Amino acid sequence: LNRIKASGLKLRFCTNETQATREKFVKKLQGLGFDISVEEVTAPAPAACRILKERGLRPHLLVHDDLVPEFAEVDKANPNCVVIGDAADNFTYANLNEAFRVLIGMEKPVLISLGRGRYYKETDGLKLDVGAYMKALEYACDVQAEVVGKPAKMFFESALAEMGVTPEEAIMIGDDIVNDVGGAQQCGMRAVQVRTGKYRPCDENHPYVKPDAYVNNLAEAVDIILQQL
Amino acid sequence: LNRIKASGLKLRFCTNETQATREKFVKKLQGLGFDISVEEVTAPAPAACRILKERGLRPHLLVHDDLVPEFAEVDKANPNCVVIGDAADNFTYANLNEAFRVLIGMEKPVLISLGRGRYYKETDGLKLDVGAYMKALEYACDVQAEVVGKPAKMFFESALAEMGVTPEEAIMIGDDIVNDVGGAQQCGMRAVQVRTGKYRPCDENHPYVKPDAYVNNLAEAVDIILQQL
Repeated sequence: LNRIKASGLKLRFCTNETQATREKFVKKLQGLGFDISVEEVTAPAPAACRILKERGLRPHLLVHDDLVPEFAEVDKANPNCVVIGDAADNFTYANLNEAFRVLIGMEKPVLISLGRGRYYKETDGLKLDVGAYMKALEYACDVQAEVVGKPAKMFFESALAEMGVTPEEAIMIGDDIVNDVGGAQQCGMRAVQVRTGKYRPCDENHPYVKPDAYVNNLAEAVDIILQQL
Repeated sequence: LNRIKASGLKLRFCTNETQATREKFVKKLQGLGFDISVEEVTAPAPAACRILKERGLRPHLLVHDDLVPEFAEVDKANPNCVVIGDAADNFTYANLNEAFRVLIGMEKPVLISLGRGRYYKETDGLKLDVGAYMKALEYACDVQAEVVGKPAKMFFESALAEMGVTPEEAIMIGDDIVNDVGGAQQCGMRAVQVRTGKYRPCDENHPYVKPDAYVNNLAEAVDIILQQL
């Protein structure tokens, strides 16, 4: 990261993290030694806040407790939409019913989902992600959710807009074949898959996503990018 | 009902009730003055039990506490499928994760759903039904649930088999345009919609289900049937 920054290239961190504010997320990465600030992070919650403001939407929130501060500035009285994130233990029957009743009570239900992940791994095992609960509400209310986060095109476009560059000028580096590589390519960017983290060997035979290049780690991606300047 | 029974016609009660055993369901109806016995009831849980036995399936149950006794005779050790019903307050994040882990751990996940309802009304408001949670697990595990209950064709067929009659010899009387009327018709039966309970005037303009007749109440349906004998 330091070499990228020293080269004068613009940099942006795109995450689907919705279990914590950007502040917490950044602190965690700083603790791991990364030179990163809140302003460099594109995350679903702040992207959703922009959409809410633009469209005059007042959300009923079904999100993780630690994410609530991201919506501090948003008017939440008399809700006219539902925002769902990875609420984890907040996904109780009572809370899901409440979100459902808000939605079904609208003339035209608006459901905004912070990502569409199926599940993820934690130390104590696999956990259902926001996408599963999004599908439950979609079915119950016969509505299609608007997804904010990777791999949504709009999410990558807002990251590009924040940097002030075109898709052709940008390159995505990520470990997730669909959310990182596929999403960025659909937006017109080139994308490199890193063979760490979520990477699985079977990704290299993915039926419809083919990265522009593979690297074994982030440093190798930086080498390639700096060589081509 | 007494007039139907006195006429010698065979009778069967088809319910999607999965919050209680047939015993409890029958007691409730008996309390309301209906002449009904457990043997006359076709319900999703016993239908599922037959399927489990036929296919050598051992279920992990995600159902309402009051339904568990229906599965007393079924081997539940080392589960190789998941059975989901309207579990209501049992739809906790922990319980849904547990069912998900059982499914995702299978080479070929088998998910059996007792109905596919979206929601229902209780005295304290609308509640999410089993269909919403079925969709959550379907999405998370990339699997298609097998639905047991109305409007599944197999469910009506087992009711007919229990009575020993053909679809052409049977008539369905129900208040639900899709689950009762549509399901029975798809099975080759004629079906009458009763203008009580779940009936809504807009049902009469339903895009793809048209009952063979409408009646204002059950007694009127019995009049018509007995007249045509």
